[in-house]
Amino acid sequence: MTGPAGSPAPRRRGRPSRTAEDSGPGARERILEAARDQFAERGYDKTSMRGIAKAAGVDAALVHHYFGTKDDVFAAAIEVSFDPTTVVPAIVSGPREAIGERLARFFIGVWENPATRAPLLAIFRSALTHEAAAKVLRGFVLRRILERVAADLDVPNPQFRAELAASHMIGIAILRYVIQVEPLASTDTEEIVAMVAPTLQRYLTEA
Amino acid sequence: MTGPAGSPAPRRRGRPSRTAEDSGPGARERILEAARDQFAERGYDKTSMRGIAKAAGVDAALVHHYFGTKDDVFAAAIEVSFDPTTVVPAIVSGPREAIGERLARFFIGVWENPATRAPLLAIFRSALTHEAAAKVLRGFVLRRILERVAADLDVPNPQFRAELAASHMIGIAILRYVIQVEPLASTDTEEIVAMVAPTLQRYLTEA
Repeated sequence: MTGPAGSPAPRRRGRPSRTAEDSGPGARERILEAARDQFAERGYDKTSMRGIAKAAGVDAALVHHYFGTKDDVFAAAIEVSFDPTTVVPAIVSGPREAIGERLARFFIGVWENPATRAPLLAIFRSALTHEAAAKVLRGFVLRRILERVAADLDVPNPQFRAELAASHMIGIAILRYVIQVEPLASTDTEEIVAMVAPTLQRYLTEA
Repeated sequence: MTGPAGSPAPRRRGRPSRTAEDSGPGARERILEAARDQFAERGYDKTSMRGIAKAAGVDAALVHHYFGTKDDVFAAAIEVSFDPTTVVPAIVSGPREAIGERLARFFIGVWENPATRAPLLAIFRSALTHEAAAKVLRGFVLRRILERVAADLDVPNPQFRAELAASHMIGIAILRYVIQVEPLASTDTEEIVAMVAPTLQRYLTEA
């Protein structure tokens, strides 16, 4: 990162330095992007607030200022990938009889895209190995997304049903993209959607 | 560990010491048990051949003698939990119209038992964070078990079908036991079996 017109921003301890470079409208987004990359590449444990700040080209105090703790940055970085206001309508809107297919296709699309796969992998790896990360995933993401999907369902125990559907998609992601079991790892996505959609449809719509 | 009649076994470098304590009929089992505990408690990375040997009360050379490399010990420790000769018949034998229910109940039973849950958790944590462990899980376990289950199925793409069923059970285990999402984490096992069994049944038996 270079400062505007090559002028290095003065760094002070304790307070974020308020320059155009540091706290401009793009700073929050740059921090989130850096955080996502750092968590994906280094894992939860080895990612530090200082490292995120450095990668984003800002003062560490600004990361604290915007997000608070490392857990909060992690949660915010996850929400960028799993934004409920985008994810939920993509699943629940449209004909009810095709919700299973929409969910399967949406989820596999997210995993097939390398740009979204890396942060998702980082999230699951972190959540499986660090209770702090599991708590974030549990509280901020799964609950916020699954609760909203469940609110739109007309079945008994809708939250349980939404979680069963999510469990299947998560399991497929782990076997296909992480463990890379064959033939699942190289099966055409449409073949997976065709098999899995009726399962999700039953969980989400059949009493 | 104390030696027989309190006589300490002489330790030599390079070759396992051949005493009743070290290489008796129980040594292999003690090593496997110690390996399972070490991988579960410390993770793949931090588990060493020396640490396993120490916990089993044997010479490190004996661990090498029996199992070869750390990956081989990991594979053998997994196989103790996932012995194909026990697992496969438990799933495929019995009436074909109840294979989904049997698989769901068997799998959840393994996870509900704390003695088998810990090593399973260790396996998945290791496989998600270390390619070497993922390779072991892929090669030795999933393939050996799923291939045998698939060999007994009368559907197109039986291995793909068996992997879809496995993916669902693995996803449930992760959300219920690791991430501990509610209400899934505290839902009665029979309620889970009732919902999931028809899914597995369809994957494993319907063309």
